[in-house]
Amino acid sequence: MVEKSQFVFTGSGGQGVITAAIILAETAVLHEHLNAVQTQIYGAAARGGATRTDVIISDSEIFYPKVNQANVLVCLTQEAYMKFYPIIRPGGLLITDSRYVHTERTVDAVQKELPMYETVMDKIGKPIVFNICMLGAVVALTRVVRRESLMKILEERIPPAFLDMNRQALELGFELGTDAA
Amino acid sequence: MVEKSQFVFTGSGGQGVITAAIILAETAVLHEHLNAVQTQIYGAAARGGATRTDVIISDSEIFYPKVNQANVLVCLTQEAYMKFYPIIRPGGLLITDSRYVHTERTVDAVQKELPMYETVMDKIGKPIVFNICMLGAVVALTRVVRRESLMKILEERIPPAFLDMNRQALELGFELGTDAA
Repeated sequence: MVEKSQFVFTGSGGQGVITAAIILAETAVLHEHLNAVQTQIYGAAARGGATRTDVIISDSEIFYPKVNQANVLVCLTQEAYMKFYPIIRPGGLLITDSRYVHTERTVDAVQKELPMYETVMDKIGKPIVFNICMLGAVVALTRVVRRESLMKILEERIPPAFLDMNRQALELGFELGTDAA
Repeated sequence: MVEKSQFVFTGSGGQGVITAAIILAETAVLHEHLNAVQTQIYGAAARGGATRTDVIISDSEIFYPKVNQANVLVCLTQEAYMKFYPIIRPGGLLITDSRYVHTERTVDAVQKELPMYETVMDKIGKPIVFNICMLGAVVALTRVVRRESLMKILEERIPPAFLDMNRQALELGFELGTDAA
């Protein structure tokens, strides 16, 4: 379905973008028989508070693990957006959270501003699953992995006491992404 | 102190090598003003159960994030050891856990077989901090970051209820590494 897809998730430290990236990479590898590389690049941006994590998913071997241009860029804070919007590939997909980011720039990409944080807080009330909602939206909009594969990884990785909350966040994200597609 | 260091931590899924790698990278960036890249490469090995995570730490910008030859290779399972021992750089450092790995091959590297798992189980009784003990041993043997910087990151990242256990595991690892240096 996807020859090569380069995802970059950005936000602030506590938003769980790294966990979301690891879950996406594991889903692709363990339940879709794709290859994946998942990278954190820490530097001046990390010291400033912006977290960036890259995932490359491919049906062939991946030789160069760093994303130079993102097919899909997710920004969960204004700071991350201002820092990273230039890496979107022309014609790519830019997903921002409508509570945290005011998009100001014109980018040559499809832009989706989704109320992910607001929806999670309204329906679940726990900010900790914001990242899983984001992942649901990404998968709904890109179909890079199957929804049921993602659910399987959650079931394998998330402690039973937290599973329902994560499942619900994934569904909410999936709905937001599907409605916006 | 270190111009460029390439670390590869390997083991099985539940051993926390990815978390250890993220903590090391964050320590280097946030408290040592170094640059770091931390990568998971998932592929056939991941499906077989061997987890590999790479950390590159440098005082200059890092352009190529994948480790081809490891200065420091840690193996926490026999399977990971058999799979990854060839990537050790000649003259590098190979750290294995003495309960999980029987070293069979001659490698052109300094070999340290440390009773990390056994020590954690004897003194703390919780396998969940095995990875932090490993990290303490790595830092004692390489001095890639300062012990107090690592402690600071633990204090920032670990929930208070679990901090003592992690602190203790770090100390145990540090002692094992120091004794073996």
